[in-house]
Amino acid sequence: MGHQARNPDFEAVVRESFSRQTFMTALGATLEEVVPGRIAITVPFRAEHAQQNGFLHAGVITSIADSACGYSALTLAPAGYDVLAVEFKINLLRPATAPRFVARADVLRAGRTLTVARADVYGLGPRGEELVAAMTSTVIARPIR
Amino acid sequence: MGHQARNPDFEAVVRESFSRQTFMTALGATLEEVVPGRIAITVPFRAEHAQQNGFLHAGVITSIADSACGYSALTLAPAGYDVLAVEFKINLLRPATAPRFVARADVLRAGRTLTVARADVYGLGPRGEELVAAMTSTVIARPIR
Amino acid sequence: MGHQARNPDFEAVVRESFSRQTFMTALGATLEEVVPGRIAITVPFRAEHAQQNGFLHAGVITSIADSACGYSALTLAPAGYDVLAVEFKINLLRPATAPRFVARADVLRAGRTLTVARADVYGLGPRGEELVAAMTSTVIARPIR
Amino acid sequence: MGHQARNPDFEAVVRESFSRQTFMTALGATLEEVVPGRIAITVPFRAEHAQQNGFLHAGVITSIADSACGYSALTLAPAGYDVLAVEFKINLLRPATAPRFVARADVLRAGRTLTVARADVYGLGPRGEELVAAMTSTVIARPIR
Repeated sequence: MGHQARNPDFEAVVRESFSRQTFMTALGATLEEVVPGRIAITVPFRAEHAQQNGFLHAGVITSIADSACGYSALTLAPAGYDVLAVEFKINLLRPATAPRFVARADVLRAGRTLTVARADVYGLGPRGEELVAAMTSTVIARPIR
Repeated sequence: MGHQARNPDFEAVVRESFSRQTFMTALGATLEEVVPGRIAITVPFRAEHAQQNGFLHAGVITSIADSACGYSALTLAPAGYDVLAVEFKINLLRPATAPRFVARADVLRAGRTLTVARADVYGLGPRGEELVAAMTSTVIARPIR
Repeated sequence: MGHQARNPDFEAVVRESFSRQTFMTALGATLEEVVPGRIAITVPFRAEHAQQNGFLHAGVITSIADSACGYSALTLAPAGYDVLAVEFKINLLRPATAPRFVARADVLRAGRTLTVARADVYGLGPRGEELVAAMTSTVIARPIR
Repeated sequence: MGHQARNPDFEAVVRESFSRQTFMTALGATLEEVVPGRIAITVPFRAEHAQQNGFLHAGVITSIADSACGYSALTLAPAGYDVLAVEFKINLLRPATAPRFVARADVLRAGRTLTVARADVYGLGPRGEELVAAMTSTVIARPIR
């Protein structure tokens, strides 16, 4: 949507922060795309991250969508800022049965303090991409102390 | 709130389903309370489940709140039914810095098809309990095939 | 997104139902577009529908977005069904200062029982269209008794 | 929940702001309770504010819940501040068939910039109070320019 980064080092900032999210490592998540106003994060299906029917737990889908929304906001933040999710809402549209998933987050509105982003999560399988979840998140930017 | 279980075996049903959620095991989560219309799930802080500042990742907090809401609905479902989250929304009220957290979910409204539950997540620390997150979730009940 | 109506009379059904929503009339709202999976509803700014600063009240923006989501679901429902909003979430992105607004709703996922739709609300003013709000809604379809 | 107002004139500030919300007047809404961290607003059923089945439109229920959440935040704001809703989510739990409704909002967490409130909306009828909707809202406080 034609977003412009205020911090020329936005990609390094996002990649360095992502590398400190140990939970992303625990889930096997990978940061795939870092452009101004847009982030993509993938995660594999793992049997040890399932819900009661053997599908990927909604918490895993939600976790990569949340991180994707947060980092999409961080791509547009000034240097020296960090971001925190204020809140998010997610609709779970289909069972998460694919072997791999991607959360693609896009900034809808970047304000001085608050940024709103949407993430769509797709299952990546033999049938191609299938939308499994849709998130909207409000993110706050704060100067790093 | 005076909820009554329709399935006398609700506790066994919930505990058996929870034991199949491998992701709860991966997070170190424990099912603490199973009463009609109410569930409590706890999770410890673990360094490998952190976000970029070393706090527990919002995805972990969300995962136990989501499971707690789903199981609070399952306590009130007829025998032979399973539940799935349709959607949820969570507000993250404070950084998740406590050594342990509890998500307490209560059914607000149990309908034939849809149940709405709220979960409050508290940090359990030296200062006592502190509210760190608040979720509302819509859950659908379906006959097990 | 390539949605197909199951009821060939979907447009008449939607228009007839909209005409019974007296609140839409009270707001001055108009049903502008009725295609399978998509609805547009407009509303004018009126001084008697304002919040404390003289902007259009968020409740007005929300009301047309809610009706648009519901009717986008109804365009895809079988004959003899009605729809009801189960829940929705809206982010208010900019003050509603334009002279006129349009809510455009699109179905994200149409299921047997539940349909999920998103509505974007734009201010229509001298500067063109400006996104002022973004909703996600879950809608339930039920046979008319 | 033991909230304390920072502005001793909080009640006058809230009542004056409410009186400028012309939309509340248009709906017939009344500000019933103004205490630190808590607001109650009532609205009557009116045939001209209905949805397609003759129930009160969800937009009306949402509007009083939104104003109640916003003003619950304003009761705790410093002097010279105004509030705006950032986002809200509402679950519609029962058809709004009562002759009168009350939205009761309580602040969950009051921060420097953001406040999170919950509003429960009850139908007030011959059977007593019945919960018809539950909202969570994020509100931002800003100095009045």
